[in-house]
Amino acid sequence: MKNILGFKFSGINCGLKKSKKRDLGLIMSSEKCISHAVFTKNKILAAPLIVSKKIIKNNEIYGVIVNSGNANACTGIKGIKAVEKTINKAADFTNLNKKNFFVSSTGIIGIQLDVNKITNNFDRLFNNLHVKNIKDFAEAIMTTDKYSKIKKSEISIGTKKGSIIGVAKGAGMIHPNMATMLCYLLTDIKFDIKTFRNFINRAVDSTFNCISVDGEMSTNDTVLGLSNGLLGNNKINNKSPQANKIYKSIENIFYELSRDIVLDGEGSTKICKIIVKGAKSFKDSKKIARNIANSLLFKTALFGSDPNWGRIISAVGSTQIKYIDQNSIDIYIGDKLVVKNGLGLKLSKKINQIMRKKEIKIIIDLKKGKYESFMLTNDIGHEYIKINSLYTT
Amino acid sequence: MKNILGFKFSGINCGLKKSKKRDLGLIMSSEKCISHAVFTKNKILAAPLIVSKKIIKNNEIYGVIVNSGNANACTGIKGIKAVEKTINKAADFTNLNKKNFFVSSTGIIGIQLDVNKITNNFDRLFNNLHVKNIKDFAEAIMTTDKYSKIKKSEISIGTKKGSIIGVAKGAGMIHPNMATMLCYLLTDIKFDIKTFRNFINRAVDSTFNCISVDGEMSTNDTVLGLSNGLLGNNKINNKSPQANKIYKSIENIFYELSRDIVLDGEGSTKICKIIVKGAKSFKDSKKIARNIANSLLFKTALFGSDPNWGRIISAVGSTQIKYIDQNSIDIYIGDKLVVKNGLGLKLSKKINQIMRKKEIKIIIDLKKGKYESFMLTNDIGHEYIKINSLYTT
Repeated sequence: MKNILGFKFSGINCGLKKSKKRDLGLIMSSEKCISHAVFTKNKILAAPLIVSKKIIKNNEIYGVIVNSGNANACTGIKGIKAVEKTINKAADFTNLNKKNFFVSSTGIIGIQLDVNKITNNFDRLFNNLHVKNIKDFAEAIMTTDKYSKIKKSEISIGTKKGSIIGVAKGAGMIHPNMATMLCYLLTDIKFDIKTFRNFINRAVDSTFNCISVDGEMSTNDTVLGLSNGLLGNNKINNKSPQANKIYKSIENIFYELSRDIVLDGEGSTKICKIIVKGAKSFKDSKKIARNIANSLLFKTALFGSDPNWGRIISAVGSTQIKYIDQNSIDIYIGDKLVVKNGLGLKLSKKINQIMRKKEIKIIIDLKKGKYESFMLTNDIGHEYIKINSLYTT
Repeated sequence: MKNILGFKFSGINCGLKKSKKRDLGLIMSSEKCISHAVFTKNKILAAPLIVSKKIIKNNEIYGVIVNSGNANACTGIKGIKAVEKTINKAADFTNLNKKNFFVSSTGIIGIQLDVNKITNNFDRLFNNLHVKNIKDFAEAIMTTDKYSKIKKSEISIGTKKGSIIGVAKGAGMIHPNMATMLCYLLTDIKFDIKTFRNFINRAVDSTFNCISVDGEMSTNDTVLGLSNGLLGNNKINNKSPQANKIYKSIENIFYELSRDIVLDGEGSTKICKIIVKGAKSFKDSKKIARNIANSLLFKTALFGSDPNWGRIISAVGSTQIKYIDQNSIDIYIGDKLVVKNGLGLKLSKKINQIMRKKEIKIIIDLKKGKYESFMLTNDIGHEYIKINSLYTT
């Protein structure tokens, strides 16, 4: 696969993490990027989001600076000033403008960010920029993630080959609306800005908003898309012949990253795709899938490889959707029918084998309408408790 | 305390639980009771609830038959027939009517109930009736509860002393709307039926609907109130001089039982009262309190005695209530201010001591309005995972 045009990466340790692991990352583009970001819907916004929300509007991003180890959330005016200092110093350092830098943070909430640790290390950070250092960047944005998450794709546009790269971090606190999740989508393909925004929004909706690790939504979640257009193709818009292929490629990168995030959920041992069919609206099917995905009882049963469909059907009913009829519900574990018209069938040994797999599919068919949707979720086990009961102390 | 007039109890083992523990309970009144029940809002209703919902309308209850070990939920027409057989046999056995018996079940979902184990043991069940056997009854309705739950109260009405007794079971799957929770409130005080219904509804709303163990709502939850009126007082209505005292007494019994249920939550080691003040509506304050009470990250922090207020403020914001302003939020742990206007204060050692207590109070003040409400919640630790990952297998 060819290298993406114009983007370089860097990732170093600047002392924010006690562990000496990388905790400061940088993406730089040689050309100005059009950009679009989707932010958390949490009403408590971290300082970098308050600042970056304004910056993104200028559509003139060259650089993205990300620190892990401290979320810079609930840090008041001092937190805002820390972001501003980061941007000002970066602009000085590069002879660029304050409008050209986007900032993200991830880590603990409510502790003031020691911004000097970031700015005093700009020399090392900027001098390490290289297209190959994307791995360092991916590591630098990790918190409780067990592995870094990078997905790449290449698309032919006429005689040229465009690149799309996604880098993400996730782990705990993942929920629809992308809790404690950072994702950067970079491309050298030239886009019409409206189409770029539309692609990012749609693809976030059908991927990152379909995952749940623990039903939480963080103060820092961000998906940022950057296109520097260095491929020199005709601007991609909705009517371009390659539009659908490119959209699918973005969606696929987001899907693969979100799947990785669920699999890497704090203490997670398996991943489950919950498909709800036969609803009278998309919204209803989603509500039910989400209710199961967030059910602690379901997630602990998953951990124990227990085919406890009673917890599934109970989570269906607790949505209180009026037309749900227990006598018409079918449930499949893998491809095996385990509940027919609300009644449990005799469970074969095969079911226990399916439940012990690392990836499980469960289908709930309400048989009331034509709408369907899914959620990806994981199990909750002892590791989750261990990690989360001792996070700050 | 005097004995309640006219009520007797029984609790035996009939073979539904493998453990040989009591699993079949009976309450009998010597006089016909006026009655009112609040049922789960889950759209998947267990068979006894489908039947008992009709029976309660006749307002002629003499007996309540409760089994544990099997929820008789998702059991289709066979499940309904099992409840009908229980009622028919009980009516035959006592020379009463089918309208006179209320049935509840609790336990595993989706396995057919072996109703003969119940009806074949009616001899022993009915012959064991005694006012002192309330403890046996309370044990017979337990599932994963660690202890039985009985609360009593006595109220002077003129020269007479009226009795009110509450018996409940809870443990896992507890959530507003009373998941997997059974409660029986019995009194010999004579009531106007409308007032009785109103008292039960109001008291359920301000107690059982304010607790959360794991955010689940079951298929079987029931609060049943029975009044046999044997005290012979003038019917209590809204205008009776004792009305408020009696209401408070019912509410207090429900509060004490719901507190016990949270404390006895599966694997729970502590209880936390979350008070949300300064909201612009009662509904908003409740939504926020509930969101914190159900937050897995908060519940694991509670388990680890970790004063992680970042998770609290994040759960406040994720309700997406528009007027939430992070710069005006105060948070108290116990009586100690830990967040002032959205900014964390230096935590004293005292905070860690408070977090290690068995009962903790946390106050969130939005400073935006005059409404306030609370939720009782517990922590989630290793025991919860252990119990719930291996419930059916």
